[in-house]
Amino acid sequence: MSRVLGVLGGMGPAATVAFLARVQALTPAQGDADHIRVVMDMNPQVPDRNTRPGEAEAELGAMARRLRAAGAQVLAMPCNTAHAQKAGIEAVGLPFLDMIEITVAAARPYRPGRVGILATPGGEALYSAALTTQGITPMTVQGADREAFMACVYGVKRGDVGTANRGAMARLARSLADAGAEVIIAGCTEVPLLLAAPEVRVPLVDSAEVLARACVAACLRMDPPNAERD
Amino acid sequence: MSRVLGVLGGMGPAATVAFLARVQALTPAQGDADHIRVVMDMNPQVPDRNTRPGEAEAELGAMARRLRAAGAQVLAMPCNTAHAQKAGIEAVGLPFLDMIEITVAAARPYRPGRVGILATPGGEALYSAALTTQGITPMTVQGADREAFMACVYGVKRGDVGTANRGAMARLARSLADAGAEVIIAGCTEVPLLLAAPEVRVPLVDSAEVLARACVAACLRMDPPNAERD
Repeated sequence: MSRVLGVLGGMGPAATVAFLARVQALTPAQGDADHIRVVMDMNPQVPDRNTRPGEAEAELGAMARRLRAAGAQVLAMPCNTAHAQKAGIEAVGLPFLDMIEITVAAARPYRPGRVGILATPGGEALYSAALTTQGITPMTVQGADREAFMACVYGVKRGDVGTANRGAMARLARSLADAGAEVIIAGCTEVPLLLAAPEVRVPLVDSAEVLARACVAACLRMDPPNAERD
Repeated sequence: MSRVLGVLGGMGPAATVAFLARVQALTPAQGDADHIRVVMDMNPQVPDRNTRPGEAEAELGAMARRLRAAGAQVLAMPCNTAHAQKAGIEAVGLPFLDMIEITVAAARPYRPGRVGILATPGGEALYSAALTTQGITPMTVQGADREAFMACVYGVKRGDVGTANRGAMARLARSLADAGAEVIIAGCTEVPLLLAAPEVRVPLVDSAEVLARACVAACLRMDPPNAERD
């Protein structure tokens, strides 16, 4: 029997559904029973992670406790930005697959000197710190491009995954590659709803894909990422 | 604040994810916070509903209790077949949106004399009984077509939503219409992963779509389907 995955979702809702679909697609299954059991709290009303970080941390902790009570054995949160408040989740004591940590680990085999980050300001800060610790130079979108990035993300949250929004995200990825990024991290779970790896001429490390793979591995015990065996 | 939706899912997993996406698509939202909070237990290991109905009913009841503990205020289960064991869920005392009942209600405005059913044998029995009570003649797939239908469903459960599988489902829908069905009920949540309304020349009433609409209405209190106002 595989382990039960607990998902702290809803930040945003479309990204969470795309993440669930990816977990399924990555699970070797010939029928229903081969799939991983997932308990989820898709909570689009988590307090704002930028303006009310303390309340957000408390709410994420409460969600994690409820997921544990519902049977979760491994926790994951398909939202990079909210990882700034991960302490509330980790306090619950279940293995928590840290999306920032495993995404940076997934970028390392490319041995990049400079890595471009497509993320919200909060996610960017987390990735910049994690990359710098590894001796990798983070590159970020600036000025008007920062505003264009957030417009793309809020577009997805409104339901816009159309051609114009996709084109805008592809342009931002290109500008990071043109500026010298050797790898680009899709460090916001809305990014893969607009951008696919073949659209970028340098490797694209998609945090949602990396997290989904880690969830499948942890729940099927294909390897023990940062979780103890039981 | 909208009501919290509790989803008993995993039967099958792909149908559950498609259902969640549909709930989102039907929710009027300009941003994350406008979406409905969803707590879900996607449990692909519910005991077989055909061979172990008593155990299945007990497990569905346990899932419903855990969802209530996690905050659910309205319950829904995007699997028609498992509605034969709905007593376990209803015993928990939350409003439960009965997919069979609301789908038959959604077919009634067409005033059909004969309704074709695309469902598993278990789902077919539930729909046949519900239609007959309304004075509507149920029409079902028979013989080799019955086996072809189940092959389509198990294909989806293996991840096959390709052209051949889609074509097979469209053929079954056509054969029901050719035999005189005035409306077709997609009475299995795997069906809409293979078949869209424009592919059928008579109205297609999709149980997953009907349930998603009812969930949005119940949680946003746009109207009170079979749930009391609180």
